[in-house]
Amino acid sequence: MHWIQAYSKAKVRDDLVAAIIVTVMLIPQSLAYAMLAGLPAEVGLYASILPLIAYAVFGTSMTLAVGPVAVVSLMTATAVGAVTTPGTDNYLAATVLLALMSGGFLMVLGFLRAGFMANLLSHPVISGFISASAILIAASQLKHLIGVPTSGHTLPQLIQNLWQNLDQFSPATLVLGLLCLGFLAWVRSGLAPVLRRLGLSDSAADLLAKLGPMLAVILSTLAVYGWELDQQGIAIVGHIPAGLPMPSVPNIDWGLVTELWPAAVLISLIGFVESVSVGHTLAAKRRERIQPNRELLGLGAANLASGLGGGFPVTGGFSRSVVNYDAGARTPMAGVFTSVLIGITALFLTGLFTYLPRAVLAATVIVAVISLVDLKSMRHVMQFSAGDSVAMFMTIGAVLVLGVEAGIIAGVLCSIVCLLSQVGRPHIAELGRVAGTEHYRNIDRHEVDQTQGVVALRFDERLHFLNARLLEDQVSDVIGRPDVQHVVLHSGAINQIDASGLETLEAINDRLQTAGIDFHLSEVKGPVLDRLQRSNFLSHLTGQVHLTHHQAMQALSA
Amino acid sequence: MHWIQAYSKAKVRDDLVAAIIVTVMLIPQSLAYAMLAGLPAEVGLYASILPLIAYAVFGTSMTLAVGPVAVVSLMTATAVGAVTTPGTDNYLAATVLLALMSGGFLMVLGFLRAGFMANLLSHPVISGFISASAILIAASQLKHLIGVPTSGHTLPQLIQNLWQNLDQFSPATLVLGLLCLGFLAWVRSGLAPVLRRLGLSDSAADLLAKLGPMLAVILSTLAVYGWELDQQGIAIVGHIPAGLPMPSVPNIDWGLVTELWPAAVLISLIGFVESVSVGHTLAAKRRERIQPNRELLGLGAANLASGLGGGFPVTGGFSRSVVNYDAGARTPMAGVFTSVLIGITALFLTGLFTYLPRAVLAATVIVAVISLVDLKSMRHVMQFSAGDSVAMFMTIGAVLVLGVEAGIIAGVLCSIVCLLSQVGRPHIAELGRVAGTEHYRNIDRHEVDQTQGVVALRFDERLHFLNARLLEDQVSDVIGRPDVQHVVLHSGAINQIDASGLETLEAINDRLQTAGIDFHLSEVKGPVLDRLQRSNFLSHLTGQVHLTHHQAMQALSA
Repeated sequence: MHWIQAYSKAKVRDDLVAAIIVTVMLIPQSLAYAMLAGLPAEVGLYASILPLIAYAVFGTSMTLAVGPVAVVSLMTATAVGAVTTPGTDNYLAATVLLALMSGGFLMVLGFLRAGFMANLLSHPVISGFISASAILIAASQLKHLIGVPTSGHTLPQLIQNLWQNLDQFSPATLVLGLLCLGFLAWVRSGLAPVLRRLGLSDSAADLLAKLGPMLAVILSTLAVYGWELDQQGIAIVGHIPAGLPMPSVPNIDWGLVTELWPAAVLISLIGFVESVSVGHTLAAKRRERIQPNRELLGLGAANLASGLGGGFPVTGGFSRSVVNYDAGARTPMAGVFTSVLIGITALFLTGLFTYLPRAVLAATVIVAVISLVDLKSMRHVMQFSAGDSVAMFMTIGAVLVLGVEAGIIAGVLCSIVCLLSQVGRPHIAELGRVAGTEHYRNIDRHEVDQTQGVVALRFDERLHFLNARLLEDQVSDVIGRPDVQHVVLHSGAINQIDASGLETLEAINDRLQTAGIDFHLSEVKGPVLDRLQRSNFLSHLTGQVHLTHHQAMQALSA
Repeated sequence: MHWIQAYSKAKVRDDLVAAIIVTVMLIPQSLAYAMLAGLPAEVGLYASILPLIAYAVFGTSMTLAVGPVAVVSLMTATAVGAVTTPGTDNYLAATVLLALMSGGFLMVLGFLRAGFMANLLSHPVISGFISASAILIAASQLKHLIGVPTSGHTLPQLIQNLWQNLDQFSPATLVLGLLCLGFLAWVRSGLAPVLRRLGLSDSAADLLAKLGPMLAVILSTLAVYGWELDQQGIAIVGHIPAGLPMPSVPNIDWGLVTELWPAAVLISLIGFVESVSVGHTLAAKRRERIQPNRELLGLGAANLASGLGGGFPVTGGFSRSVVNYDAGARTPMAGVFTSVLIGITALFLTGLFTYLPRAVLAATVIVAVISLVDLKSMRHVMQFSAGDSVAMFMTIGAVLVLGVEAGIIAGVLCSIVCLLSQVGRPHIAELGRVAGTEHYRNIDRHEVDQTQGVVALRFDERLHFLNARLLEDQVSDVIGRPDVQHVVLHSGAINQIDASGLETLEAINDRLQTAGIDFHLSEVKGPVLDRLQRSNFLSHLTGQVHLTHHQAMQALSA
């Protein structure tokens, strides 16, 4: 909290302005994401109060805005929905527990400085996961948009449920929902240019356009209240109890802990990755920096606070953080101000949302998540790398068909298998000299000269158990050739070596010796040489360790 | 089978001599390993007939001798013992099925050219696995040595069983067993020098010493028969039916297939790895070579043949292949001759083994496997690499306490986690110039000069999802420093890049740009540059791609 020492009046004003704008944006989002998580609307407000204060104390980003976000809310609904029924007290207790567990796990990772765990989630897996989750979220909100009760946590379930209950469809709800969807879609792209033409600055126009959802909330609530549309079959949010829950430590149900821990781990990691990515991006804009392992503590504290305050899992949200940044937030104090404003809302203003139609919240969610379906990034991954594409589509397919948790796990396993298969099949080149230079290149790709009786191989990967036998096989081929007297292994791209690699070098040395061929190394890296010196390989080596490959070839052609 | 075209009379003689010596060695081993696998003694002979012919047709090693081996026999006993009871017809049928499944799996791997599957077994895991298996095998044979009935497939089970049944201990058996153990141990180390002093050549003395087990078999059988020791409580092999089973395709029990497949896969991989390692070593001695993917077909055919001929899983054995080689075998025809000789034994000579004491077979096994406990190799691994040591001791512990299959799986998982953690934590160095040279080295380890306003980083690993964020964090640190104008990433050790790596480079480029810093690459490898050109990263790059790091630094300091 070094920022608090340099806190000034000018910053107070900036942070307060940002807090007001973020609050206006956050209120409909909080209500909507609570609904998405299967919770009463007020829980969304509770999850937007204490976590912001906790993050301000423990986090390292100046502008990250934490709270309920779409993907984590979906994961919460899936995890808690699997162990209990929405609408019950047990459901509420389980989401609180999930927030506490997620907070605890993040705290533990933070104290162990184990943020690298999140590296298991590759970019294509996260990108595929978020795109597929967005589709699932949009599908799950269709029920509110057309007034049909459905449930389910996978696309086939949702579609089947929707189809079965289509007879309960409410025309009035659909009309309102579509109007709202159209309005929000227009606000996203069309409002800012209009505001600019009205003379607002670019940034002010962009910021105001972000407040479209609040406008939709106000207009639709007035319409429902004024024309008594709730009598026409339009579902409304209904009575939201005013007040704040007293912070309390719930009774821990250890059976539930056992059932929820995989979800808590996945929610923590996904939340952390997303939050850190937003944090890095915003910090760089002002040449500030965030500390990933400290972020674990910040997010952990935020989730613990959410659980203690009767909320559900939270994380740093992309759009609200950008709004916070663009609105001029200077320090985490903006989050504290936001927290106070949301607290005032929960205490005194909940009555204003009674007539808010659920279809409008659903439209807010749908418009927000559809932009998360990242077709451009998918196209880029497909162009760039086959292995990554497989991992990405595996994730998308598994999320849609098997659910969010199975999806992440499938994606992580798939990317690990891809990585292992790549480090297991390194590029091995036979080298020749580019005439007149000291450069040695692949004989298959370049016009090069080879030295009679000397075979030079380059191995482009760390030498370890998954790939060492490839080198062994390659050298076996060389042994079968006539007149070979020396084999030189160009080791410039061998970043490290394990015991299997050493065993292989020893076997190669022995077999070449049996066949009367000397074995040399060139361009061996420092860490590799350090390690080889811990074995007695170098004393058995029939040839030499040459500093450069050129020196090796000069010595052997002499 | 190219060797058959050049087959000559001289080779017939050499192969026949080798076959006779191998047969004499193989008979006691076959009987003993059948007993270890929980099978009647004659099954060991059956498994040493057809597989040798099948391997001669499909294999690529000139001197590899296939048949029952200790570790695979233990794995067979464990796998089949888990699904049925030793001594029943079901047990026999299950071992036949296991041989067929193992053969089928090896064949499939061979047709798919998927021998790389075996690379999952690192040297330390195999070494630990074999050492631990040897201890388990020796422990399982103690019962025959002291005449106490025990069972179990883990060390705690075996010890507990032995302890409980210690009252049934047979003094006569123990005396015979210890005598035999002492004799065999002496033969292994002490006989060859005596023979040499008697005027035999070194190689003849070594070869004759290998026939010690047969000598023990003959002497002990005569002793039991002459002095009717079987009346003193010494267990004998008993009646072995003469004749050969007709090759037949058994009824496949699909329920059993489901239960046995993990064991079949592990047996195939372990057998393949061991066999290929022996094959490579012997081939190199004569500048011949073996083809690993063809070996899969050879071993697959051998196992299918073993199953069809009523045998159990087989593979290439180390000691018998060395004997075959040393005895002068020239071609796989030696295996065919061995096969015929074993066939003759099974048809006409089984009566000779009726009075063979089981304790002698047990002593043969114990002496053979104790040499597999490779303490020297363990010490080397411990000196060489911590990660490998963990994987090795994890394997040893799991084999002894949980059993052979759990042991291999634990070892493989552990080595994969070690590898991932290593490629996930690469060495990142900040570079400076060694004064007066074109060399750039780690500023923490060498006396080097840095250029004002330019930060040069070197990343020593392929850039992928597990480690890309480390680079991101490192660059975030650099952004926080004052007066930086250029960041150069020395990419000479980046062997490949995945989509997460690309995403990271893009994020770094964007963030540096936001902070007013240019981003450069140097020494980018061909395959990496090829891949980067498939994205539009290079067109966004704020700096340049420099051929060498020195050129980059020259350009930027100008």
